[in-house]
Amino acid sequence: MGPKGQPDPAGRGSAAATPEQRTEHLAPPLGIGMVGYAFMGAAHSQGWRTAGRVFDLPRRPVLSAVCGRDPAAVRVAADRLGWAAAETDWRALIARDDVDVVDICTPGDSHAEIAIAALEAGKHVLCEKPLANTVEEAEAMAAAAEAARARGQVAMVGFNYRRVPATALARRMVAEGRIGTLRHVRVAYLQDWLVDPDAPLTWRLRKESAGSGALGDLGAHIIDLAQYLTGERISGVSALTETFVRERPLAGGPSGGAARGQVTVDDAALFTARLPSGALASFEATRFASGRKNALRIELNGELGSLAFDLERLNELSFHDHTEPGVSAGFRRILVTEPDHPYLDAWWPPGHGLGYEHTFVHQARDLVHAIASGTGPDPSFADGLQVQRVLAAVEESAAKNSVYTTVPA
Amino acid sequence: MGPKGQPDPAGRGSAAATPEQRTEHLAPPLGIGMVGYAFMGAAHSQGWRTAGRVFDLPRRPVLSAVCGRDPAAVRVAADRLGWAAAETDWRALIARDDVDVVDICTPGDSHAEIAIAALEAGKHVLCEKPLANTVEEAEAMAAAAEAARARGQVAMVGFNYRRVPATALARRMVAEGRIGTLRHVRVAYLQDWLVDPDAPLTWRLRKESAGSGALGDLGAHIIDLAQYLTGERISGVSALTETFVRERPLAGGPSGGAARGQVTVDDAALFTARLPSGALASFEATRFASGRKNALRIELNGELGSLAFDLERLNELSFHDHTEPGVSAGFRRILVTEPDHPYLDAWWPPGHGLGYEHTFVHQARDLVHAIASGTGPDPSFADGLQVQRVLAAVEESAAKNSVYTTVPA
Amino acid sequence: MGPKGQPDPAGRGSAAATPEQRTEHLAPPLGIGMVGYAFMGAAHSQGWRTAGRVFDLPRRPVLSAVCGRDPAAVRVAADRLGWAAAETDWRALIARDDVDVVDICTPGDSHAEIAIAALEAGKHVLCEKPLANTVEEAEAMAAAAEAARARGQVAMVGFNYRRVPATALARRMVAEGRIGTLRHVRVAYLQDWLVDPDAPLTWRLRKESAGSGALGDLGAHIIDLAQYLTGERISGVSALTETFVRERPLAGGPSGGAARGQVTVDDAALFTARLPSGALASFEATRFASGRKNALRIELNGELGSLAFDLERLNELSFHDHTEPGVSAGFRRILVTEPDHPYLDAWWPPGHGLGYEHTFVHQARDLVHAIASGTGPDPSFADGLQVQRVLAAVEESAAKNSVYTTVPA
Amino acid sequence: MGPKGQPDPAGRGSAAATPEQRTEHLAPPLGIGMVGYAFMGAAHSQGWRTAGRVFDLPRRPVLSAVCGRDPAAVRVAADRLGWAAAETDWRALIARDDVDVVDICTPGDSHAEIAIAALEAGKHVLCEKPLANTVEEAEAMAAAAEAARARGQVAMVGFNYRRVPATALARRMVAEGRIGTLRHVRVAYLQDWLVDPDAPLTWRLRKESAGSGALGDLGAHIIDLAQYLTGERISGVSALTETFVRERPLAGGPSGGAARGQVTVDDAALFTARLPSGALASFEATRFASGRKNALRIELNGELGSLAFDLERLNELSFHDHTEPGVSAGFRRILVTEPDHPYLDAWWPPGHGLGYEHTFVHQARDLVHAIASGTGPDPSFADGLQVQRVLAAVEESAAKNSVYTTVPA
Repeated sequence: MGPKGQPDPAGRGSAAATPEQRTEHLAPPLGIGMVGYAFMGAAHSQGWRTAGRVFDLPRRPVLSAVCGRDPAAVRVAADRLGWAAAETDWRALIARDDVDVVDICTPGDSHAEIAIAALEAGKHVLCEKPLANTVEEAEAMAAAAEAARARGQVAMVGFNYRRVPATALARRMVAEGRIGTLRHVRVAYLQDWLVDPDAPLTWRLRKESAGSGALGDLGAHIIDLAQYLTGERISGVSALTETFVRERPLAGGPSGGAARGQVTVDDAALFTARLPSGALASFEATRFASGRKNALRIELNGELGSLAFDLERLNELSFHDHTEPGVSAGFRRILVTEPDHPYLDAWWPPGHGLGYEHTFVHQARDLVHAIASGTGPDPSFADGLQVQRVLAAVEESAAKNSVYTTVPA
Repeated sequence: MGPKGQPDPAGRGSAAATPEQRTEHLAPPLGIGMVGYAFMGAAHSQGWRTAGRVFDLPRRPVLSAVCGRDPAAVRVAADRLGWAAAETDWRALIARDDVDVVDICTPGDSHAEIAIAALEAGKHVLCEKPLANTVEEAEAMAAAAEAARARGQVAMVGFNYRRVPATALARRMVAEGRIGTLRHVRVAYLQDWLVDPDAPLTWRLRKESAGSGALGDLGAHIIDLAQYLTGERISGVSALTETFVRERPLAGGPSGGAARGQVTVDDAALFTARLPSGALASFEATRFASGRKNALRIELNGELGSLAFDLERLNELSFHDHTEPGVSAGFRRILVTEPDHPYLDAWWPPGHGLGYEHTFVHQARDLVHAIASGTGPDPSFADGLQVQRVLAAVEESAAKNSVYTTVPA
Repeated sequence: MGPKGQPDPAGRGSAAATPEQRTEHLAPPLGIGMVGYAFMGAAHSQGWRTAGRVFDLPRRPVLSAVCGRDPAAVRVAADRLGWAAAETDWRALIARDDVDVVDICTPGDSHAEIAIAALEAGKHVLCEKPLANTVEEAEAMAAAAEAARARGQVAMVGFNYRRVPATALARRMVAEGRIGTLRHVRVAYLQDWLVDPDAPLTWRLRKESAGSGALGDLGAHIIDLAQYLTGERISGVSALTETFVRERPLAGGPSGGAARGQVTVDDAALFTARLPSGALASFEATRFASGRKNALRIELNGELGSLAFDLERLNELSFHDHTEPGVSAGFRRILVTEPDHPYLDAWWPPGHGLGYEHTFVHQARDLVHAIASGTGPDPSFADGLQVQRVLAAVEESAAKNSVYTTVPA
Repeated sequence: MGPKGQPDPAGRGSAAATPEQRTEHLAPPLGIGMVGYAFMGAAHSQGWRTAGRVFDLPRRPVLSAVCGRDPAAVRVAADRLGWAAAETDWRALIARDDVDVVDICTPGDSHAEIAIAALEAGKHVLCEKPLANTVEEAEAMAAAAEAARARGQVAMVGFNYRRVPATALARRMVAEGRIGTLRHVRVAYLQDWLVDPDAPLTWRLRKESAGSGALGDLGAHIIDLAQYLTGERISGVSALTETFVRERPLAGGPSGGAARGQVTVDDAALFTARLPSGALASFEATRFASGRKNALRIELNGELGSLAFDLERLNELSFHDHTEPGVSAGFRRILVTEPDHPYLDAWWPPGHGLGYEHTFVHQARDLVHAIASGTGPDPSFADGLQVQRVLAAVEESAAKNSVYTTVPA
């Protein structure tokens, strides 16, 4: 049989390598089962396929099975994305012996049920963000993860932007004290794919499936990233949200058809926040920033220095060292591609940049290490729950005339 | 007597040019009297000295007299900055026959008294921003300006950042409809001169002299600029303010001395806002953003395009045309140095940039035109009053748990 | 047996998917055999592993075997990189039935022998750049490729920087006439890994293995890219070369040992050139540009517009449209991540950037299409030969006091 | 008589200040006489008017007289630009008692005659660049300057780009050893005002008036700047020049008229060079780089660091410190607006940028100091002569098939 799970008609490729010859120096396998195979599923697949090819891992990820409702489509996806088997029922996927990790890439309304079932079945879990559509669901998930942790299981939330080498470097520099006492955090996640009022009404625009709009999709990322980078948890928020276009054509409807539906989520969310250290923060999440495609931007200002990042230039980190003499100080552009930068020792020579998908390779790597070592993971379901509580506080503040709303501990 | 108030001992320079020979093609003079000669006074002087050398003006600015309390110091300043006479009492300055325009460059607590007296004396007035330290003062000033307007007098507030060619171009493009329906305004004014906790307690850090801190100093600029660029007035705000360092060494105290005083103004102010069009806005003003020296940044996102500006690169305007095919669309960097850009026909060839001080040259130019034409000016004292009302709403919201606070019309 | 060519000791993963179930909708396999598995080998492996997972391909790449001299090391590399078999003799690799394409990732001194043997054995060939170490070798290779082409075989040179979406877009825009008559080409490839005079003397610094230094390694890339983007071939050159550090520690020698060897290649090469259209070009290749990690920069200026690219920001292309009114013209930053950009329809949503390694995925994709369609490939061995002739003209000019030296047609 | 050449009808402004009151603390005057009042004349006027208003100078510049051939036009220019008197014969200007410095802002073909006459008349001289149109003229000028120097006179060439704070800072950092042994200099001066083939045939496109084209106009600047920043003189060059558009409409001809004339200068010049230290350099000067308005760019790479500058962002200097750990190294953007940056202590607070014209203010400042101190000036006529020799070597190499051509010492 041929390489990479591909059938090898004509018996080609069988000569030099047999499993027996090779097993000894290989790490033991770790079977992955993935639910959902759309955009996120494709990205996760690339992560699982690649992590063991690049990093030295204590367990070797094996793409055991993928799950989706349409039998023919999931079969095609399995072959395309490199999964050995296809399932149409996520319960069957969880039940498979060759699945050690359940990777949940579905919309938020199904996260709680699948994740809890997987944890109860003794599986490790990776769950896409936001953890859930409600605080209640997230609480149940965190409780399940806590219980499973006692059994040696790992449950991680897919805040993949922690795995950009530049953001991981920023975290390291903050932890090392390079920016000192924090004063300001300035975060925005700007996209523009809803600017056109005739963009269709997809599941992401319906509260029942997505939970919220830009807030949950983009806001969840920047809340987590801000908390990760600062090492602090948001104390409270004051928020505004808005839905600019309240009715859109039904997705899949006839082109030019009159059928339209209500947008039931926010198009944009802005909020200010306080951190326990006394720092002030501002957040903005929107899909209406014309020309900004994936501009997740974060800047931290501290007494000793500042850091700035923009996901549209993800191989770069800006750093200002305020302890230097002013005459030669300035924001420097660190090209985060050196061997001693996070994740980089396994990749290419300096200056040969990585892309978006590598965050999923790194996420896979980190999850495998967490499983093998029994520590972590970061971010845990408890971290995901806390992000959910911030999201809820944002919605509560927005509903109450922006009044400052404390985030429960 | 020599050129520009300089004595000409050897009688040199008297040969070829007599007033008689030259008067006919010269515009009639416009006498300027300036109160205050510190940083702002130096900048205004540069504006008055230069405007008539570069632009064709209907009236020719003459630097008649400058006023300050210390007789020796104001005399030196007059010679240095090019003012023909020096005064030590602003009432005497206003009373001078050779003063047509009173230019007020003092701290905010004296603006109202001087401006109202000057207007009542029949003078035109240019007043530095913020217009006043309180809404009440600003209302009195606006009323005085309104009364004076009926007598043909002009009263302008010194929001000089409207006079950067790039911001003026942005306003023109918004007015032409280049960005369409507005969705977002994102504004920050970031400086870092208070990061050091031992920076001294100057008048700018005392409520009685400065009115407020970053809010009035930087926030006033960005409120005015945002309203100018959008052509809209802020409906309401939700705000946070903070004083990070509450005690500082007294200015002028003995070095290393123990004498410290209370900082009675904000170090930073953040607020979100709504505009009548339905657009959302965010504002941040701070002097604690390490490494950001004068980063006034504004971005507007509309349905048809976006505009972005950063004062640290003041010769540039970023523009994204969302009506272009996506395949070749992107934020373009317009170098705002072409002859058909605002103010540029009088300056240097393309690519030969201007600086900060040119905003004062342009302000002088625009004020002279407003006086000659009897129209305008922009921004008027009424505009300054409205900014003051936004500032007051910010402080009120900050004092009331960030609750959304409407700005009175 | 488990997915992805990985043995599955515990028999896991065997359930749902058998080759029989899946074969019908899969494209027929295309067996790849790779010689060399260092930096380039790892990059090519990533390309071969991924191309069929992302793109719809007429043939399905199968990583049949990899070849290296050290049996244990090549075995480990095979497992790590995902190759089914390992060989220690490149002649054996060529002879394998399951190898349809021979991918040559060795130093330049072995390219000619391997490539010609592979072509004579009826295999398709992908050969890393520069095509060879001498014009004579390159001529023999081009002749072999020409002969093989008549037999339906494809021979491509690995100028992977043609496969950056941004450079491919630039080529498309030039071909569409967006920049008009060409006036200037400005190209540099700047790295800095030899700045330290104690960096070791590797094979890349010895003429017998590498052929030349920065010239062949970096210069070959920018010559090809300039010719590709302009659609023109360099007419003649005037060159300077220099070896700044003429002696270095022997690689692998004892740390701090006194053993040093001669650097026999150039550290930097600069040349000016003329193109048939009358345009002027400048080229610079160096490994001594401190702080520049992988700065391949190219700018084209034409009568109707300009294009600029920097490999350190490989998801971006700068474009100036000179036909626009000057008032709103400027270099725009096209984020080359839209679905209608080259290669992008198969990848992630807008703004989710790619990295260096994707050039190898795209190269694999393009080679598979060339093989399946029997057209192309671009760049052919003839193209590689022509680059070799430019390199030779550069060396000749440098040896003759920089005199302008014509490149043979 | 009114301030700065302005008549003061009605006796206004006469009250408080008499020369007697003020003379004591003023520096003694330094009379300036300027020849030519077009673009360069306006820029120099701004420099002379402003220098003494901003800097503490040992002599006080007085704008005594300006000279031009058209009596009415020069009279208007005098009033506009602030010159007390107008002359129509440069010999008369030189003869004036109130002229201590002759400032030559005419095309290059008249530089030698005027400068030599002024020096022989005992005047200090500031001469616009390039110093002359031929090496012979430049030699005569340098000889005259040398003779005059013995009499205490100063003769400076107007290479104003040495006076950008960022370039002056770069020079300081190079001199301090911040970049170590130099390896590369990369310089380009890119403009685009001749891209349109119907741009008119001005004096700048005629060899008899301008000497050369882009080479003398732009190339002279970058040769001087490269030599200034490195502290080295170019050893030899290898050059290509080209005239892309050989015929253009006569300036001032009827619009759409058929009258065209020959362009007799280069449109672009490219050359490579060697420096005595062993460093390699590349130069490009062109007026055909669409979208590049005034892009004078220079980058220096040394063993310890790199510096980069772009005149289109003249308040910034990029610096890479190669002695820092790679993990946090990168090109930093120094905003050259701090008080301890060159020239900046006299200007505005940090972040409040300067513009193009300030180079002329600084040039005036530096010339006044040179005159008062009897040292310098930099750049001297000898420096200007050396640049002229490089220009001549470029033309010689271009005429001889680009052969490497030594620059005479």
